[in-house]
Amino acid sequence: MRKILALDVGGTSTRAVVLDTTGRALSFARAGGGNPTSVGADWGLTALSEAAERAIAADPSETDPESTALIALAGAETGDFLDRASARFAALGYRGGTSTEGDLLGTFFSGTVDRRGYAMIAGTGTIAARIDDGRMTAISGGTGWLLGDAGSGYWIGHQVTRAAVADVDGNGPATALTPLFLRATGLEFSDERTGGRSAGRSVVVRSLVDTLYQDRPIALARFAPLAFQAREDPIAADILERPSDAIAALFRAVLDPLVDGPLVLGGTVLGALMAEPSPLRPRLAAAAASRQVLVPDGLVGAAILGLKHAGIHLDSGLFETVRSEVARVRDAASFDRSTSPAGTQA
Amino acid sequence: MRKILALDVGGTSTRAVVLDTTGRALSFARAGGGNPTSVGADWGLTALSEAAERAIAADPSETDPESTALIALAGAETGDFLDRASARFAALGYRGGTSTEGDLLGTFFSGTVDRRGYAMIAGTGTIAARIDDGRMTAISGGTGWLLGDAGSGYWIGHQVTRAAVADVDGNGPATALTPLFLRATGLEFSDERTGGRSAGRSVVVRSLVDTLYQDRPIALARFAPLAFQAREDPIAADILERPSDAIAALFRAVLDPLVDGPLVLGGTVLGALMAEPSPLRPRLAAAAASRQVLVPDGLVGAAILGLKHAGIHLDSGLFETVRSEVARVRDAASFDRSTSPAGTQA
Repeated sequence: MRKILALDVGGTSTRAVVLDTTGRALSFARAGGGNPTSVGADWGLTALSEAAERAIAADPSETDPESTALIALAGAETGDFLDRASARFAALGYRGGTSTEGDLLGTFFSGTVDRRGYAMIAGTGTIAARIDDGRMTAISGGTGWLLGDAGSGYWIGHQVTRAAVADVDGNGPATALTPLFLRATGLEFSDERTGGRSAGRSVVVRSLVDTLYQDRPIALARFAPLAFQAREDPIAADILERPSDAIAALFRAVLDPLVDGPLVLGGTVLGALMAEPSPLRPRLAAAAASRQVLVPDGLVGAAILGLKHAGIHLDSGLFETVRSEVARVRDAASFDRSTSPAGTQA
Repeated sequence: MRKILALDVGGTSTRAVVLDTTGRALSFARAGGGNPTSVGADWGLTALSEAAERAIAADPSETDPESTALIALAGAETGDFLDRASARFAALGYRGGTSTEGDLLGTFFSGTVDRRGYAMIAGTGTIAARIDDGRMTAISGGTGWLLGDAGSGYWIGHQVTRAAVADVDGNGPATALTPLFLRATGLEFSDERTGGRSAGRSVVVRSLVDTLYQDRPIALARFAPLAFQAREDPIAADILERPSDAIAALFRAVLDPLVDGPLVLGGTVLGALMAEPSPLRPRLAAAAASRQVLVPDGLVGAAILGLKHAGIHLDSGLFETVRSEVARVRDAASFDRSTSPAGTQA
C-alpha cells in the first residue's frame, strides 16, 4: 500500500502519523524534541528517527516502496538535515522521497482547508505568518529568546525566574511565585547569608546563580507553567497580562486587510492563554474579524501537506477525514499509554 | 622604597596605580577588562599583568621587595586566580604579598573615608552593598544578565536591541533607535523579504539573528549608549525611565535605618543617569537622606585598601592625599595619551 509518513517536529516533542492516500490513519507515535536549531542536528535526527520507527512499527500493513514522507519543521532551509532524515526514512521503507515545510504551514493546515489566512505559534518561542495561495507570504517573530519572542514560554519563564530571584534577593516585591520556583529548582528558602570577603549575600541567591547559569537560557521556559499556577498573585498576573499585547502585535505585523481568512493558533502558550480569562481573545478580535481556530499542534497539517506533496487532490472532505483520523489514532495511543501497567513502558 | 600596587579590575577595563606608603602616586596605567567571570581567568590574568607591567614600567624608582599589591574585583572568592596574580606581581618585584577585596568596597572607599554607608555600582551589571565597620554586611543584586541586573548597561542594551529588532520585524513601534542600531551592527535597512520555503521574512531581521546569536549575550551591553543618544525618542526615553526604579529598589534592599552614612555610586550607567535629568536622584533621595557621592571607578578605594592591608593607618588627611594623587597621575596619563602623535601608541 502506498502511504505517507508525516512528522510534526517541535522543540520539545516530535509527532508522527502514517496514513494511506485516502487519509485513513494507520498509526501514531511520539518522540522527544527534534528541531535541529533547538536540540542540535544529531539529537534532532535521533528524535525524528524514533518517532518514525515507532509509528512504522505500530503499522503492520505492507508499505509500497514509493511511499513518501513529509517533515513540518520550524527554521530556515536545512538541506543537510533533510538529506539525512530522507536517508533514514528510505531505510525504513519510505523510498518515494522526503519533503519539508514550515511548522507555520503545518499549524495552518491543521485548522483549516482554506488556502489563505494566518497562522501563529506561541510555544517556547512566538512566530506569525500570512498565508496566501497555500504559501507563506509574510513572517514576523521567530527571532528567538534573546532578540524577540515576547510573550513566549521562554519569555514567561524568564520573567518568573527574575521575579523569584529579585524577591529572594530583597530587591523585588514578595510573590507567590517564589515558593513554587524554589520547589521547581529543588532549593529551600533560607535567610542565611554568606560570610567571607563578599559577606551578606543570600545563600539561596548564590545557589540560584550557580545553578541556573549552568543550563542554556532557553531552559528557563520550563518555569512558564508556574505563572499560570500562581495566577491569583499580582506579580504572576502582571506577567500573564503582557503576552497578550505582544502576541496581538505579532498578528498585526502579518495582517493584510486584503487577505481574509482564518487565524490558526498553535503552541502550548497560546492554548493556555486562550483557556484563561486573559485579554488575548478580545485583542485578537480587535485586530481582525478573522475566525480563530486553536489547534493542539501541527500534525494534521503535516499530514495534509504530505498528501499534497504525494499528488493527492485536497478538498474539505479529505481534510475532515484526516482531522478525525489523526485524532482517532492519537487518542488510541494515549489510551494505550494510560492503561499500560506501570513499569512496562519503554 | 616600599610601595603599593593597587588594581581596580572591571569587566571592560582594568586600572592600576603605584603609590608609596605616604599616599603619593608614582604611576598609573590602564589595560582591558580583567574580571575572570566576565572575560575568563587566562584573559583576566593577562589584563591584570598588562596593567601592572605598564604602571611599574612608568615608575623609575627602586622598589623594596616587601612591597605589596591589592586587587579590587567583583565576584566570589577566586583563590586560584589570586594565587596566579600574586605570582605575577612577585615576579614584577612586589613580593610582600597580594590581597583582594570586593569591587564594591573599592567603590565605597573611592568616595569616602567613613567606615559605614552604602556602595552601588551600575555598569554592565548592577549591585549594591551595605558597609559597616569597613566591611560588607549586606549585598543585593549582582545576579548577572540572565537572572537580574535590571537597569544595568546589559539591560539597557538588551532593551535597545529588542526594540530595534521588533521595529524592523514590524511587530514593535517605529523608533529612532533603529537607524542607530543598524549602523552600530554594520547593517543597512532594507524592505527586502526572503524567498524559498520560509518566504516573507525581512532579510535584515534574518541577518540580525544570524549575527547577534554568534556573540555572548552580555555583548549587547555595547548598545546601551544608543538609548542615551536617542533620548528624545519615546521608546528610548521609556527604556531610560525604568532603570531608576530598579536601581532605587536595589538601594532599598541593602538600606538599614540604623546604618547611616554616604551612598557611593560607581559605574558608567550610574554616571550617565546621574548626569541626565533622570528620576534617579529624587528616587535615591526619597529612599534615604544619605549623602550621595559619584565616583568614576574604584581605583582610589583600591589604593586605600592597599595601604590598609600594608598596615598604614588611614585618616581623612591620607584619604584626601590619595584622592588627589590618583587624580593627578590619571590626568597626566590621559594628557600623555591625548598629545602623543598618532601612530606612536601601542
